Amino acid sequence: MKIKIKQSVLLENLNYVIRGISSKNLIPILNCIKLSLTKDGLYLMSNNTELAIKSFIDKKNISDIYEEGEIVVTGRYLYDIVRKLPDEDINIESAVDDKLLIYTNSSSFNLNCNKVADFPKLEMEMQKKPICIDKVVFKNIVNQTAFAASTSEKINVLTGINIKITNSKLECVATDSYRLARKQININYEGDEINIIIPTKNLLEIMRMINDDSKELELHIFNNKIIFVFDNNVVLSRLINGKYPDISKVIAPSYLVTFTCDYDKLYNSIDRASLLTNEANDNTIKLQTKKDRLLISSNIPEIGNVEETLDINKEGDDDIIISFSSKFVLEALKAFTSSNIMLMFNNENTSFIIRDSEDDSLIQLIMPKKTY
Amino acid sequence: MKIKIKQSVLLENLNYVIRGISSKNLIPILNCIKLSLTKDGLYLMSNNTELAIKSFIDKKNISDIYEEGEIVVTGRYLYDIVRKLPDEDINIESAVDDKLLIYTNSSSFNLNCNKVADFPKLEMEMQKKPICIDKVVFKNIVNQTAFAASTSEKINVLTGINIKITNSKLECVATDSYRLARKQININYEGDEINIIIPTKNLLEIMRMINDDSKELELHIFNNKIIFVFDNNVVLSRLINGKYPDISKVIAPSYLVTFTCDYDKLYNSIDRASLLTNEANDNTIKLQTKKDRLLISSNIPEIGNVEETLDINKEGDDDIIISFSSKFVLEALKAFTSSNIMLMFNNENTSFIIRDSEDDSLIQLIMPKKTY
Repeated sequence: MKIKIKQSVLLENLNYVIRGISSKNLIPILNCIKLSLTKDGLYLMSNNTELAIKSFIDKKNISDIYEEGEIVVTGRYLYDIVRKLPDEDINIESAVDDKLLIYTNSSSFNLNCNKVADFPKLEMEMQKKPICIDKVVFKNIVNQTAFAASTSEKINVLTGINIKITNSKLECVATDSYRLARKQININYEGDEINIIIPTKNLLEIMRMINDDSKELELHIFNNKIIFVFDNNVVLSRLINGKYPDISKVIAPSYLVTFTCDYDKLYNSIDRASLLTNEANDNTIKLQTKKDRLLISSNIPEIGNVEETLDINKEGDDDIIISFSSKFVLEALKAFTSSNIMLMFNNENTSFIIRDSEDDSLIQLIMPKKTY
Repeated sequence: MKIKIKQSVLLENLNYVIRGISSKNLIPILNCIKLSLTKDGLYLMSNNTELAIKSFIDKKNISDIYEEGEIVVTGRYLYDIVRKLPDEDINIESAVDDKLLIYTNSSSFNLNCNKVADFPKLEMEMQKKPICIDKVVFKNIVNQTAFAASTSEKINVLTGINIKITNSKLECVATDSYRLARKQININYEGDEINIIIPTKNLLEIMRMINDDSKELELHIFNNKIIFVFDNNVVLSRLINGKYPDISKVIAPSYLVTFTCDYDKLYNSIDRASLLTNEANDNTIKLQTKKDRLLISSNIPEIGNVEETLDINKEGDDDIIISFSSKFVLEALKAFTSSNIMLMFNNENTSFIIRDSEDDSLIQLIMPKKTY
């Protein structure tokens, strides 16, 4: 292959495929990027068995295509070299003895290539009717739930995010069994019911690739993989095999104590109260309602204690005293952009709910800590 | 003590004294901040035996001084609490049983205090005639040299920065014995010769405290300590005992090969060449002059090689081939803001010099690597 291409054009696309290599991978070919130059343009590919990424540069954005061909080269070196070259035309050319030349007027790199045949095959077939979804909407869904997924490999399915699509509704759930985040949206879908578990790490990595300029996102869902298509990129993630727990009964049909309050005041009060908590104790704090006042308190015996008070709008006369991890509640609160937040409790031993006071599409569920 | 003070005023000064505590310190009193309220204002103090810091808030910036007094409290908690409170008046008040109350309308903290008598004494006496120096000038001196100091404790004096003041000249030197940075400036000083070694870590920490709004910096130098005075802050650092190596003979009286070149082009070429180097090998690259061309090259056998070329203005006909750590040269180059840079060599076995082509107040000296 032989190509002349502007540094900025090549770098923009390398920024995508570099996410599909892990420099810590012991198998050298999985740290490689494959360049495939055709008369239509340049394909860039990476594949670390978790994620496979294919990015395309149309010939109209390429300065010169001299000779079609394919090469496979260590991704990190290719990326760093292109990143550090000035924004002018770069020549990339395969040479004898499996060498790749990268040169400009003043720089000349000579890299050893890997065998093209060793590069793992990308099975990037598409579906005729993919699910189309706005990229901002999908990014929000992931960001509002992913943090609740488990980071421990003990229960494999909980390290993923469960996406269910039924009757024109998409539901996204993540849980580590101590807290749960559920987001529901309406979408335009009429196919078979879908119920998949996507590895959280992969999904977050893909979300980082989707920038504000990206247009619509296509989801192509198969038995054992999901393919995301956006802009000129195709990204494949494996799915997690297994049955995700049924969460339909986790949310109680009714709650005894419900109040709304100012989002910022609640967040800041919990944030301050968490200063006098111990990580060893999951940063546990105590919450107590007294009519229309909320008290949040915590203490570390050898250091001191804190009590925060704020006004709330409570329904009914029942009050609640409950303890929970301030870390979990702060993370759950961060998923909201509302100015008013609603909390719903039954008793100090069962999970409680955090939601927007006027919108139940996002629900954060948290298990209390039994300290009293 | 009892005081009412605006959050932003208190936080600004806590930002200074917090640098004098180390949360990793095993001796609790060294993690404390002492507040000392007098009719003139509030003194904040910290002292971790390496650095001692005293910051002052004048009474005109304090909302109310109700009762003078002193308290000592764990610095990290005090700092985090004040940092997370809203920017309104905060009440701070000592209570029975060595407690400290910190409260606003909605927050109430109760902290256990340490004994005032246990807090290490700060001996912050001043000199009648301190050395006065512009803070930007002094910050530059430190930033242009400190990176060359040793981070290994093997030779204790090399972990410090040597400051010598003689005949109205200030010289600042740092070296780890593989490279050396020397900066000289003229200052207004007529006292006895000064030759001290300041721990690099302390000096960098102090430089971080000096912000763009700071006015002149006063240096009060004693046998075993140096005191910096700026704005309303007094900062003490211990000095390193010992004899700093005499570097007067390290810089050769003349150099055989001297050239100047464009700063950016040289920096970027070395930066790119360093991509194909090994950290295990100190990121060694090769530099070679060929008349008015400079070649910079490196290679990792299993990955590939690189050659960079750029134009230089060389004096005389002699050429040089020399190898060195690209990491050291890049760090040395970063100390300059010049658009033209000068390199001076004798042979491939002796140290070479990097300096501004028109200003020799800053000299970076680097030992070559013997690889050929």
